[in-house]
Amino acid sequence: MTRSISIFGATGSVGLSTLDLVRQHRDQYEVFALTANGNAAELAALAKEFSARIAVVADDAAYPALKQQLAGTSIEAASGPDALIAAAALGADWTMAAIVGCAGLPPTLEALRCGKTVALANKEALVSAGALMIAEARIAGATLLPVDSEHNAIFQALQGGRIDQVSKITLTASGGPFRTWTHEQMAGVTPEQAVAHPNWDMGAKISVDSATMMNKGLELIEAHHLFPVGLDKIEILVHPQSVIHSMVEYHDRSTLAQLGSPDMRIPIASALAWPDRMHSNCEPLNLAEIGRLDFQQPDETRFPATRIARAAIVAGGAKPAMLNAANEVAVAAFLNRTVQFLDITEIVSRLLDSYSPPDPSELADIFAIDKEARIRTEQLVEELKV
Amino acid sequence: MTRSISIFGATGSVGLSTLDLVRQHRDQYEVFALTANGNAAELAALAKEFSARIAVVADDAAYPALKQQLAGTSIEAASGPDALIAAAALGADWTMAAIVGCAGLPPTLEALRCGKTVALANKEALVSAGALMIAEARIAGATLLPVDSEHNAIFQALQGGRIDQVSKITLTASGGPFRTWTHEQMAGVTPEQAVAHPNWDMGAKISVDSATMMNKGLELIEAHHLFPVGLDKIEILVHPQSVIHSMVEYHDRSTLAQLGSPDMRIPIASALAWPDRMHSNCEPLNLAEIGRLDFQQPDETRFPATRIARAAIVAGGAKPAMLNAANEVAVAAFLNRTVQFLDITEIVSRLLDSYSPPDPSELADIFAIDKEARIRTEQLVEELKV
Repeated sequence: MTRSISIFGATGSVGLSTLDLVRQHRDQYEVFALTANGNAAELAALAKEFSARIAVVADDAAYPALKQQLAGTSIEAASGPDALIAAAALGADWTMAAIVGCAGLPPTLEALRCGKTVALANKEALVSAGALMIAEARIAGATLLPVDSEHNAIFQALQGGRIDQVSKITLTASGGPFRTWTHEQMAGVTPEQAVAHPNWDMGAKISVDSATMMNKGLELIEAHHLFPVGLDKIEILVHPQSVIHSMVEYHDRSTLAQLGSPDMRIPIASALAWPDRMHSNCEPLNLAEIGRLDFQQPDETRFPATRIARAAIVAGGAKPAMLNAANEVAVAAFLNRTVQFLDITEIVSRLLDSYSPPDPSELADIFAIDKEARIRTEQLVEELKV
Repeated sequence: MTRSISIFGATGSVGLSTLDLVRQHRDQYEVFALTANGNAAELAALAKEFSARIAVVADDAAYPALKQQLAGTSIEAASGPDALIAAAALGADWTMAAIVGCAGLPPTLEALRCGKTVALANKEALVSAGALMIAEARIAGATLLPVDSEHNAIFQALQGGRIDQVSKITLTASGGPFRTWTHEQMAGVTPEQAVAHPNWDMGAKISVDSATMMNKGLELIEAHHLFPVGLDKIEILVHPQSVIHSMVEYHDRSTLAQLGSPDMRIPIASALAWPDRMHSNCEPLNLAEIGRLDFQQPDETRFPATRIARAAIVAGGAKPAMLNAANEVAVAAFLNRTVQFLDITEIVSRLLDSYSPPDPSELADIFAIDKEARIRTEQLVEELKV
């Protein structure tokens, strides 16, 4: 039986990795919709290669080019935010939500509202709009499959039991490139030093999040929504080799863990074939070659990000969306050399403490919270300017 | 709903650990039969504590004492091998097969023939009589729950997928106390040195098996029967801390592992509550405190036991039962200072190569093979005598 899939954010790294897996199993997958932001040429090429039914660009300006590239094919071309939402409601059995940023929220929410199986790679869906997304998914009977390696690991480890049998979830963290640095050393960190992540080849923003450990703060928020065991049962453990992607301890004291090579296609393959498993040509894990795995408690004095995220979860409402927006602005300011490395979490912390908007009840509220938080964070950046 | 259980070998360490877990959850378990070899006093006390229906001693000589201790209770007393088999066929939903040695085979086989759920702690059932046990379990629709920490880990990791989706099973091995010793150093090993196992508190025989790594050879035979993925997909990995109890890699390259503190009650709890999970008061795993896990390829030149076991599996038939018998005799001879440490695997290897009895087709054949192998191994011991 073939599975019909749609990929939102097909030209990004998660989208391309998903298509790479589909390429290895063409007989088992039928591509329904592929979307991109504005890269019409690449989207059209992928739509043709995979015989998609619909190709959507978010940016209306890219529509003429898409239309032209798809001329003479039976692939439907569309553009704009409403077309993205319409595509999310259509035919696919399985949807990859991999659009980066808040632009990914409306189609993700739509797919969940339609009760679909949604592989979730978009961070904002759970960080900024977690309560809303989970509530809608529950009402519609949608299935959320986490694609992030940590959450996917937890999801897999949960196959060995039920959520009410869990005594602890352990999110592992590489600790980033400054794991062993003192506070004083970190004060002088440059953008170049911060983007050199030890284990995964990632973009600049995500690398900085790894360096501040705010990535783990964001993942903590996501885990809290995905796996309702209670925040006090979700721990973070520094594990520099990032081989154990996360763990679940059950109340009989058996701990189940998922391990693997640092290849995003492994968690994507798990979500793509779920509840089945597909063959992937990813590198097998060779623990004898790796030789050694290390573990230590996180130091929330040097790396306050996870403490800040925990407080945002407890406060709830608008705070997680504010945290996400503030972090993006602060990281951008650091990458632009406007503020220092240690200012990033300081700015996020100050922003969170500075005001409290009402709880969001729909996506429009989230967007408004995000916008205001960005403006206010820019002001904080100005105050801290180097 | 309560689960009715019987424990064969109730006064041994696995039996007592099982009862310790039952003691923590008295409302959920009803004890049907408890058996022991000859310790009537302890068996009677346990039978009374847990309001068992039947208490059986294997040794007829212990029957009068048992009968007397149970006078005035409604607990039925019985003795002898046939009473053990009869008890295995009776009432319990769940049977712990924890009798040590070949004496455990008949009641285990009977429970499997009755289609019961059998938690398996008796090694000989799969090492010596694996093909027979598995065939009978399949015919009767019985369920085998492995209790050994490694096989229980694999069983748990297999909850995340199907056996036909497995690309590799990794049995972890502590490597024993002589992991880093040279062949020359091992030549002079004393029984005292060999029984000091680094991670688990075990009996002398099992400690020596750990030191020679024959324990891993025996587990390899068991794993081969329990998890039919093909011998070439079962690997051994030395992991001195024994925290990861074993692993399963799926063909999408996700590896699932079970981890835990070195407490037999954890795998027993998993089997006792299966497919549910119970609370246990075992020590939670603290990886930050442990700090570090190491891994290395096994060295089959210094530790030939796993190579010998692999050959016995490939040869099949009587060979695994011969291996088990020869190893027991050789270890006893080493503990008696009759032969040297390195002679143990040498003796087993020679015994296996020295003759080939016909394939066993029933338990009586296994017993005959076992008996002959012991006699012939004693002769080899004589030849090698110090």
